[in-house]
Amino acid sequence: VIRRDRIEQAQARMRMLGIDAFLIITHDDYIYFLGEDRYQPRAIIPASGPPIVVCFRGEADEITRALGVSDVRVFQTVGQQIKDVVDVMRGLFLGVFGGVPDRKVRVGVRMGFSTPAFLLNLFQKANPCVEVADVGEAVDELRAVKDEGELELMRRAAEIAARGMGAAAAALRPGATEIEVAGEIEYAMRRAGGHGVATPVFVNSGARSCWLHGTATEKRLEPGELVVVDVVPRFRGYCANLCRTFVVGEASEERARLHAAYVAACAAAVAVLRPGARPREIDAAAKAVFDTAGLGERFVPGIGHGIGLEFEEIPMPTIHPTHQGVALPEGATFTIGHSVLAVPGVGGVRLEDTYVVRRDGAQPLTRFPTALSPAAALRELDKS
Amino acid sequence: VIRRDRIEQAQARMRMLGIDAFLIITHDDYIYFLGEDRYQPRAIIPASGPPIVVCFRGEADEITRALGVSDVRVFQTVGQQIKDVVDVMRGLFLGVFGGVPDRKVRVGVRMGFSTPAFLLNLFQKANPCVEVADVGEAVDELRAVKDEGELELMRRAAEIAARGMGAAAAALRPGATEIEVAGEIEYAMRRAGGHGVATPVFVNSGARSCWLHGTATEKRLEPGELVVVDVVPRFRGYCANLCRTFVVGEASEERARLHAAYVAACAAAVAVLRPGARPREIDAAAKAVFDTAGLGERFVPGIGHGIGLEFEEIPMPTIHPTHQGVALPEGATFTIGHSVLAVPGVGGVRLEDTYVVRRDGAQPLTRFPTALSPAAALRELDKS
Repeated sequence: VIRRDRIEQAQARMRMLGIDAFLIITHDDYIYFLGEDRYQPRAIIPASGPPIVVCFRGEADEITRALGVSDVRVFQTVGQQIKDVVDVMRGLFLGVFGGVPDRKVRVGVRMGFSTPAFLLNLFQKANPCVEVADVGEAVDELRAVKDEGELELMRRAAEIAARGMGAAAAALRPGATEIEVAGEIEYAMRRAGGHGVATPVFVNSGARSCWLHGTATEKRLEPGELVVVDVVPRFRGYCANLCRTFVVGEASEERARLHAAYVAACAAAVAVLRPGARPREIDAAAKAVFDTAGLGERFVPGIGHGIGLEFEEIPMPTIHPTHQGVALPEGATFTIGHSVLAVPGVGGVRLEDTYVVRRDGAQPLTRFPTALSPAAALRELDKS
Repeated sequence: VIRRDRIEQAQARMRMLGIDAFLIITHDDYIYFLGEDRYQPRAIIPASGPPIVVCFRGEADEITRALGVSDVRVFQTVGQQIKDVVDVMRGLFLGVFGGVPDRKVRVGVRMGFSTPAFLLNLFQKANPCVEVADVGEAVDELRAVKDEGELELMRRAAEIAARGMGAAAAALRPGATEIEVAGEIEYAMRRAGGHGVATPVFVNSGARSCWLHGTATEKRLEPGELVVVDVVPRFRGYCANLCRTFVVGEASEERARLHAAYVAACAAAVAVLRPGARPREIDAAAKAVFDTAGLGERFVPGIGHGIGLEFEEIPMPTIHPTHQGVALPEGATFTIGHSVLAVPGVGGVRLEDTYVVRRDGAQPLTRFPTALSPAAALRELDKS
């Protein structure tokens, strides 16, 4: 059901910031404000008044029932989808402003990875009276603090992530391909009720464990190699991020030392994760551990990021350097881990967990043993 | 290995079109020109001379070996990833032009779904001397015609798609959730060696079969419902698109009629799919069948699109209306199906296959029975 409370809070901020309308074209904001998802999310929240949903003809009846929105505009021709959306939008603006406005209309748009440049260009060309603004300032603070309902969905996503990680630990053996392991992970997460993944499942072994990111390839696992497994399943739109590094068989002393350092660095970062903490400080806590271990130069800064309806949301310091200074509010969800400790020739290590920031410290949403040996991790899992 | 032949062809077109450099930030072009993939693809092809690859420190040795590129610039600090990429790019331009150029540098960028607006804005702000241009004109015609090596990868993707569709047909039964069916599809495609999916697996049942697109939800399949199953697996970056509509149990006469009309419309469209054909004509051939069946108004125009390293590439008439007039060259790969025949209250039907355009007509890359009954489809599959 549509979230009028959230819409009203966003509208108050929009009026304060001089944003005339919020054009929603991404799933995260659509779910947050309209309470459900569409494959092509299209809606407008004017600075005042009810939201307007644009949808495909075949979905109109259903969407009206699902949302309880009286003002559902139905996008009737679909042969020229994006052009039609632009036309519908233009009509809506004329309606909202009662004619061609005598000044530029400031339209807030989410400026994230899923807002393509060409779509925005098309929109601006078709609407010369429009000035596009980043809607983040009006919406991000709202979205950063998760309510209990949101945390419950993130806990479900976290359980699904743990099921995937367990399947990974069980599938790691010399000769298996990264793709086979990824298949077992995905299957386990679907069987646990997962709604797909926010990023492809990463299974990076051997030299590939040093990659900053990666997917899964035909490469076969070899004895002694490190394998980074990173999953971000969704449950009703909400993400949980869980990453572990395992060894295939026996770990060399050097690899075990890298892994132990990463686990210790995460613990140090978690210890400073409380209301008011800034990514800069959290990073510094992790860096100090790596420095002590003589690994500071091997550590790529960026020990965590916000998470929720997007796998990365504010603060995301590795994307926006200014986010290093954003203080985390109580109720924020943040990951600890994320960046790679990479020693070419030896291997890369990465672990990551999702936490909620509480007054008395960080509470983990994801739960999975940190053991380097997959067999040891599975034994620990059985005990818990 | 790096594809110098393709790079030289693109460079010749870039010089003709006055594009000084091609900034690659998407997987499709990275694979096409550099012959392999990276999670964060970053490279520059100047109008003349060797390409320059930007990569993370931990990947530098490996990438140099894999590509055989002498001029690999290594992106050393990763704490501020995007900012650093921008800085590296600026340095490169200064190198390419031997100082600050005395005119705007025209940088070609892929304007697709995976080029985010904020990244381009950041790039332009950091490089005031740069004017961003759509690189499509210099690259799309090259990429549209697939060579035998590319077709072989697309055939592999097509086989993987068929394995997924077989798993879907076997999993459809009253009470199963869409998510369970999606899980079986994904698992079968991974076991067949699939490198993940280009779009989420769609399993849309009942009222959701009318959706223009969709993913998979907790909804349980009910007897008599239509279920649209749409998969786009990748193999080494290359996609194949396969879609079928099945019925759960017995189909009503009306639903069977919709399905038969769609199959006939696809056959009519395939019959006109040859070198020189334009999407407009292919669409018209399908539309004529639906009109005859009295279903013309229920058919959403857009019976196909280009496919290859992207699940949709030129021509993609439902995204860019001007692509309706693009003539297909011999060797182009194109899907037939794609858009939905939606009758709210009854259900939606969609089928889609991937073809290569040959002088003597269209050859299917994807192969799977079109039967509405999953049991019948599986029986046919067993025979073949």
